[in-house]
Amino acid sequence: MAINYPTKKKPVHKEANKANLGMDLETMINDSNEYYLNNNIAVIHKKPTPVQIVKVDYPMRSKAVITEAYYKTPSTTDYNGIYKGKYIDFEAKENHNKTAFPLANIHPHQMEHLKNIIKHGGIGFLIISWNKFNEYYLVPFEVANRYWEAAYKNDERKSIPYEALQNECYLIKEGYLPRLNYLKVVDEVYFKNKEA
Amino acid sequence: MAINYPTKKKPVHKEANKANLGMDLETMINDSNEYYLNNNIAVIHKKPTPVQIVKVDYPMRSKAVITEAYYKTPSTTDYNGIYKGKYIDFEAKENHNKTAFPLANIHPHQMEHLKNIIKHGGIGFLIISWNKFNEYYLVPFEVANRYWEAAYKNDERKSIPYEALQNECYLIKEGYLPRLNYLKVVDEVYFKNKEA
Repeated sequence: MAINYPTKKKPVHKEANKANLGMDLETMINDSNEYYLNNNIAVIHKKPTPVQIVKVDYPMRSKAVITEAYYKTPSTTDYNGIYKGKYIDFEAKENHNKTAFPLANIHPHQMEHLKNIIKHGGIGFLIISWNKFNEYYLVPFEVANRYWEAAYKNDERKSIPYEALQNECYLIKEGYLPRLNYLKVVDEVYFKNKEA
Repeated sequence: MAINYPTKKKPVHKEANKANLGMDLETMINDSNEYYLNNNIAVIHKKPTPVQIVKVDYPMRSKAVITEAYYKTPSTTDYNGIYKGKYIDFEAKENHNKTAFPLANIHPHQMEHLKNIIKHGGIGFLIISWNKFNEYYLVPFEVANRYWEAAYKNDERKSIPYEALQNECYLIKEGYLPRLNYLKVVDEVYFKNKEA
């Protein structure tokens, strides 16, 4: 079976969304980052998908074609960059469940990486889309980590319940430019004292 | 013609090198970053090679095999991370010439990216290996950019001469752990005032 598969994630056919019809989370974040870059607000990029390249052909002298490669488990998060002089780092995940976000969607390396980032003075979080409700949340690392440790150290539930998102996390509003203004929420959560 | 080609760059058969015999620059930096991470000094990672994935096969249910993909021009540098609470970003290049480093080895996007990083309060530079002499230099963005602008705005020489490396840049000493202690030079160049 051979299928065309231009990006890592299959396009998501989610329920209609008024502002950004059918647009997946990655595209929304990438578009927002482009807006931030073009308007001198922040420099944040998605890292390329990690791939182990095994074989390369040269059918023409000018162009190399990779003919055998494999997806690798990412050792870090998808996004990082600089905002207001601070190192910023996050992972973005779509959630199709209604009641909870399964922690199995995050790799242990990624939690470890975010913990290191915070230890060194950076800003680290998750962005989780709640596709059933067309909602987007900034989940501070500390909140995610509490559920993570409860799950894997104390063998408790292996998910973050929707109520935790509503009560302990921050709703990111959808818009047009940028599509997902997550840095506005970053301001509120991480730069509040500095600006007051 | 099909050849095995596990990484982006072919291994370099350079002249014998006492400390790190035959080791290429990327491996030396990756090893150093691992040392920095394991010793809680910094969190700096190489970004994956950007690849445009066109076709994926599933010979077995468990494993996806990428069967057609192409190298993409990188839009940023190879390395970034956090050190002493600061965002740090650099590109690493091997140089096999004896007298000068050809600027054609750097993509315009990468210079633009480094310029943006510095504008937003980050630390940006190049690491250039001078393979003929087994030397490694930290080249501050400002120095590289002066030659870059002279070359592409004033149509002057399209390279950085070896003398500029010696006089305006910073030699990085080879070692064992870490193999290339470039953060020691970062301390001298970017953290001098803070530590005094």
